[in-house]
Amino acid sequence: MLQTAAAKTHLDPSDLAMVPFVSVEDMMNIINTLTLPVIIREIAEYIEADFLRWESFDKTPRVAAHSSEGVIELMPTSDGDNYGFKYVNGHPANMSRGFQTVTAFGVLARVHNGYPILVSEMTILTALRTAATSAVAAKYLAPEKSKVMAMIGNGAQCEFQALAFKEVIGIDTIRLYDIDPAATRKAVLNLQNSGLNIVTCTSAEEAVLDADIITTCTADKQYATVLGDNMVSSGVHINAIGGDCPGKTELYKGILLRSDIFVEYPPQTRIEGEIQQLDNDHPVTELWTVIAGKNKGRTSDTQITLFDSVGFATEDFSALRYIHDQLEKTGCFIELDMIADPDNTRDLFGMIERSRKRQQQ
Amino acid sequence: MLQTAAAKTHLDPSDLAMVPFVSVEDMMNIINTLTLPVIIREIAEYIEADFLRWESFDKTPRVAAHSSEGVIELMPTSDGDNYGFKYVNGHPANMSRGFQTVTAFGVLARVHNGYPILVSEMTILTALRTAATSAVAAKYLAPEKSKVMAMIGNGAQCEFQALAFKEVIGIDTIRLYDIDPAATRKAVLNLQNSGLNIVTCTSAEEAVLDADIITTCTADKQYATVLGDNMVSSGVHINAIGGDCPGKTELYKGILLRSDIFVEYPPQTRIEGEIQQLDNDHPVTELWTVIAGKNKGRTSDTQITLFDSVGFATEDFSALRYIHDQLEKTGCFIELDMIADPDNTRDLFGMIERSRKRQQQ
Repeated sequence: MLQTAAAKTHLDPSDLAMVPFVSVEDMMNIINTLTLPVIIREIAEYIEADFLRWESFDKTPRVAAHSSEGVIELMPTSDGDNYGFKYVNGHPANMSRGFQTVTAFGVLARVHNGYPILVSEMTILTALRTAATSAVAAKYLAPEKSKVMAMIGNGAQCEFQALAFKEVIGIDTIRLYDIDPAATRKAVLNLQNSGLNIVTCTSAEEAVLDADIITTCTADKQYATVLGDNMVSSGVHINAIGGDCPGKTELYKGILLRSDIFVEYPPQTRIEGEIQQLDNDHPVTELWTVIAGKNKGRTSDTQITLFDSVGFATEDFSALRYIHDQLEKTGCFIELDMIADPDNTRDLFGMIERSRKRQQQ
Repeated sequence: MLQTAAAKTHLDPSDLAMVPFVSVEDMMNIINTLTLPVIIREIAEYIEADFLRWESFDKTPRVAAHSSEGVIELMPTSDGDNYGFKYVNGHPANMSRGFQTVTAFGVLARVHNGYPILVSEMTILTALRTAATSAVAAKYLAPEKSKVMAMIGNGAQCEFQALAFKEVIGIDTIRLYDIDPAATRKAVLNLQNSGLNIVTCTSAEEAVLDADIITTCTADKQYATVLGDNMVSSGVHINAIGGDCPGKTELYKGILLRSDIFVEYPPQTRIEGEIQQLDNDHPVTELWTVIAGKNKGRTSDTQITLFDSVGFATEDFSALRYIHDQLEKTGCFIELDMIADPDNTRDLFGMIERSRKRQQQ
């Protein structure tokens, strides 16, 4: 896949100058080469491994540029060996104008010399890492031998969640509900060969019947009550994905008060998550401490556990690290001539001049 | 230059999915198509225009990830219409290991929908914008009819500064000095057809003789005294480029105290610039206020003016905006399939599935 491999001369950019780029098409090819269940499980393993060494990460709140139409964010983090960041936008009105609400790309770089080693699309990759993170949390929080998951909200994230929970947790049945029946029809079509039993429901109340796990993943832009208080029975694990920015929540406050709440990074979740409805000192447990054995996850059959997920930079880092590790195996990338690498590092000017003379030949 | 234009079908990525990418080779081709003097002058015009509307920019200090080997920074800004950021590293030990000390790339995006519209190499582009910014500052601060510039430090930035000051200010003579004679020889070679009179000097003291403008652009990593107190006579303009991070300065403190000091963005310059040697409330003038006519630049023939330049995100933004405006004219770019753009925005999963089926055909 080295574009320049065939005809490389000493005048071509050096290997140091080249940065692997994974396009949307490449990402789909990686997924279809490795298969979606495998890639989600393996990303989950990377995410879990990185949560386990949480304390070695340089954690910064995301840097946001807000406008009346939406937000553009940079989410950087580093583990000391590698540095990664994600560019991601969030524009609620985009869908009605024919644009994606959320698009993303990411970069991985070496800390020791600052050179980028990967540029990748992250719209698809974010969907994978979000589902994988939910599954990792559920490993520690969902009832043992969970088989049935209710899925409220059947948008872009729905099928990835379903596959992640089948692959990592072992669920066999998914109960789908969306206020828009077209979204549910789309999910049914996409999941028809997944091996899951699929039940379509006409209300959220119906969807949660007998569910061990309730995943909420709606796109409501305001304080919404996707889950009412009477819909959550004891022993359930709630995987709350949709409430992920200030002013956007999905759960009735009373449910939060009855739950043991687990979060990724409290300073961010208190602003963006379901718990923005609660006092700033309401007790929460950091997911990484459960994975590391420092705190308990689920402790009883009657406990309601809630993973209040907003997405954190380390998860993107894990996903980028995973994709970087698949490059050689899959060959699904091109190389971008992105780093100026003159023979003499002080002679940037001469490099341009030599390029001009070469063209004139 | 649309890679997919010839054979585009409805299964190919939509135009929305494609982001123009300017590689190092493309950047050199843009420069050699437009010529270096023209491109530096035009970037200077963009920078000046953006300084003039300084108040419309969203200004954030850069986000830095420090390690023992160096720093990786993200420098974002926005004017409300466009959003831009630069990724840049600074690794002092890189040169001795065969890497660039500084490499960079940048992204421009639309604020209204968050879609990237340009990814570009910025190692070369940063060299151009740094020289262009110096020239813009000198327009307002250097003595009238300046003809002679001393250039202390003949590294990667040297030739760009020389050409920028010839093109924008009208200097006709450059006096070169570097502690490493090889650097000076390189600069002489590169500038031999520039139309400038070139004088090589064996000391900094010799270089500044009769100079209207003194540019310091050395790579010393510590508090250095490139310019001693007795070397700066009244009426001179000092263009100080090299001191650009904490612990790195070039000028004797006494010179600062005798100068009127002009800076880009005080919160950043007080940490990174020459003025880190001074009290935090030492008076400085923001360059944009001079360009906008709110404050005076040079007011007398005997005044010493100092542009304490560290480089600011708006200058990168101006440079990216300029390159974006040259894409159509020069055709020097490829398009990257970087934004997932499914027909149905809720059907990311189906897009992957359809890609798989297409491959199996």
